[in-house]
Amino acid sequence: MTRFVFHITATDGPARTGAITMRRGTIRTPAFMPVGTAATVKALRASEVAAAGADIILGNTYHLMLRPSAERIARLGGLHNFMGWHGPILTDSGGYQVMSLSALTKRSEEGVSFASHLDGTRHMMSPERSMEIQRLLGSDIVMAFDELVALPAPREAVEAAMHRSMRWARRSRDAFDAGGEHAEAAALFGIQQGGLDERLRAESASHLQEIGFDGYAIGGLAVGEGQEAMFGCLDHAPGQLPEAAPRYLMGVGKPDDIVGAVQRGVDMFDCVLPTRSGRNGQAFTRSGPLNLRNARHNEDQAPLDAECGCPSCRTGVSRAYLHHLVKSGEMLGAILMTEHNIWFYQELMANLRAAIAAGTLTSFAASFLGRYKNRDAS
Amino acid sequence: MTRFVFHITATDGPARTGAITMRRGTIRTPAFMPVGTAATVKALRASEVAAAGADIILGNTYHLMLRPSAERIARLGGLHNFMGWHGPILTDSGGYQVMSLSALTKRSEEGVSFASHLDGTRHMMSPERSMEIQRLLGSDIVMAFDELVALPAPREAVEAAMHRSMRWARRSRDAFDAGGEHAEAAALFGIQQGGLDERLRAESASHLQEIGFDGYAIGGLAVGEGQEAMFGCLDHAPGQLPEAAPRYLMGVGKPDDIVGAVQRGVDMFDCVLPTRSGRNGQAFTRSGPLNLRNARHNEDQAPLDAECGCPSCRTGVSRAYLHHLVKSGEMLGAILMTEHNIWFYQELMANLRAAIAAGTLTSFAASFLGRYKNRDAS
Repeated sequence: MTRFVFHITATDGPARTGAITMRRGTIRTPAFMPVGTAATVKALRASEVAAAGADIILGNTYHLMLRPSAERIARLGGLHNFMGWHGPILTDSGGYQVMSLSALTKRSEEGVSFASHLDGTRHMMSPERSMEIQRLLGSDIVMAFDELVALPAPREAVEAAMHRSMRWARRSRDAFDAGGEHAEAAALFGIQQGGLDERLRAESASHLQEIGFDGYAIGGLAVGEGQEAMFGCLDHAPGQLPEAAPRYLMGVGKPDDIVGAVQRGVDMFDCVLPTRSGRNGQAFTRSGPLNLRNARHNEDQAPLDAECGCPSCRTGVSRAYLHHLVKSGEMLGAILMTEHNIWFYQELMANLRAAIAAGTLTSFAASFLGRYKNRDAS
Repeated sequence: MTRFVFHITATDGPARTGAITMRRGTIRTPAFMPVGTAATVKALRASEVAAAGADIILGNTYHLMLRPSAERIARLGGLHNFMGWHGPILTDSGGYQVMSLSALTKRSEEGVSFASHLDGTRHMMSPERSMEIQRLLGSDIVMAFDELVALPAPREAVEAAMHRSMRWARRSRDAFDAGGEHAEAAALFGIQQGGLDERLRAESASHLQEIGFDGYAIGGLAVGEGQEAMFGCLDHAPGQLPEAAPRYLMGVGKPDDIVGAVQRGVDMFDCVLPTRSGRNGQAFTRSGPLNLRNARHNEDQAPLDAECGCPSCRTGVSRAYLHHLVKSGEMLGAILMTEHNIWFYQELMANLRAAIAAGTLTSFAASFLGRYKNRDAS
């Protein structure tokens, strides 16, 4: 049984393409992971997410621990069986949602105590508890539990959080390794912190490599710093991480964020944007995003994107019909637009992989971005 | 080109089975028509409705005339093209929704003036306007515009509404026949009125037959009179209508309503129950309805109905997962439960057709109802 193998088949500048092989399937990289927060990629069946080309999805530890609970999912045979997704699943550590969604949080060296946003019940999250929950869920790629700071923040706060995150990374590693059968089948990723500070990032990368992980996430970005600052960080951060392991940029992003990050050596992404936008009437297209609420679409017989392979674009579902569904608040609008957006993201990743393999990433990126950003207003 | 042919292939007591052949497809009878109010069977793609076994769906004139408007749908190539449903569509006349959803209605011999429930704009609905809208939509089976009374009502009110409905049926026939190409391709159904009064029902049936229609609906039932009173009416109403034409019981109903009405000679049905229930966490099963909000399902690995052929039941989607989705307000819960319910209704119709063909309707009905109604509480 292959637990975790990352094989790079081609590079183009800092960008790489290849595949991660795990027991539940192969993840082609660069990869985009649709977000399946509460054991569902919102509005889509698992089979529809797979048909769009996704090799792996993300599950949220925080949401699942509160409802229906990790223990219940374990009794029901694990998250894959529960939700009917048979490929790999990456689970986050719960740290980000604990800090952003819950109330009455209290941080200590031990972990974070918080009240559920659903019913106010108190819970404790720590590296050990996060590893336990992700094991109960049956996660394939487990994320270390780390501490976050919102940017901008004083350097001292960024540094202190990074150091604590490194101590928690060690505890995450130890707790994961004590997980028996699960540890023999799953992978563990560490998370680099350090804000926008190159030296802190390097120190964090060094700590993580001493511990040793299957993959390395770049954490603490896409929290409001803007694309220019993020790209500035990505000019050095990926290179500080081991070349032979996958690099995962958490919570990113817009299509142009992804193109720029791939060019800088990132291999994995996740973001709620395609699914959330789909529910809000926004469609991604090769000519830029479209707001289907706009009345200019009301008699437009064109599909969302004539080059898209999603079932709606392929069968000629019109912008006029989608406009009607969105304006009428019909669930089918959210369904079809979410599906389209997931296809758009997966087709972008496939095109990025092909361009890296062909050594044409620079021209592909210029052509894609030129068309994506120089568009008529929607 | 076959405009409209109804062929009865077997009878079993008053019950009949057969098929209606139209240019867009064949409708096997007894038939259940899922309701596609605003150009979508809520939560499902048209292809999913067809896969469930539905031969025909219903569209709502009132909703579509207000949004996106019949004229816009006509410019976009008609309702079939707009929503991607390629089989026959029956459209109601708009009369029922005008009276139940709109405000400030004023009735006269000419028709009904009303204010839109969406934006308060004033509209006029009449037999002529209803025929025009249904023609613009490209309806395959057009319903005559009639006047409704809520039951219970004084006999005089029921009688006056029936007489006006018969005058409007004449005007509907004339306006439909003036529709040119559409009239040569589509069918027109008249609607019997008369409340629960056998003599008024007979008089209405006689009026309608003098005018002549392709099919005959039994109107004014399923408006709160209860199953016993409805079945009492159905003991005589279908027999008053032509044996060679399809009989359509509007707005019915629960599975046991449908079984009893088929036994009394009804051929066509429509109801929002399977779709609306699906969105509200209720699933129909051969052992009776289940409320998936109920905590007793939270670790139940069983599918909704082990004998159901819907994609969820076939692939083992558990009650535990559906309970989680419904409790979490996830769209996928509504999607999967709506799909299941549409499959349940279509499988019931298929079983009724097979039982009539085999001459075993009485025993099938007894067996189905015994199991459906003698159940544990959900």
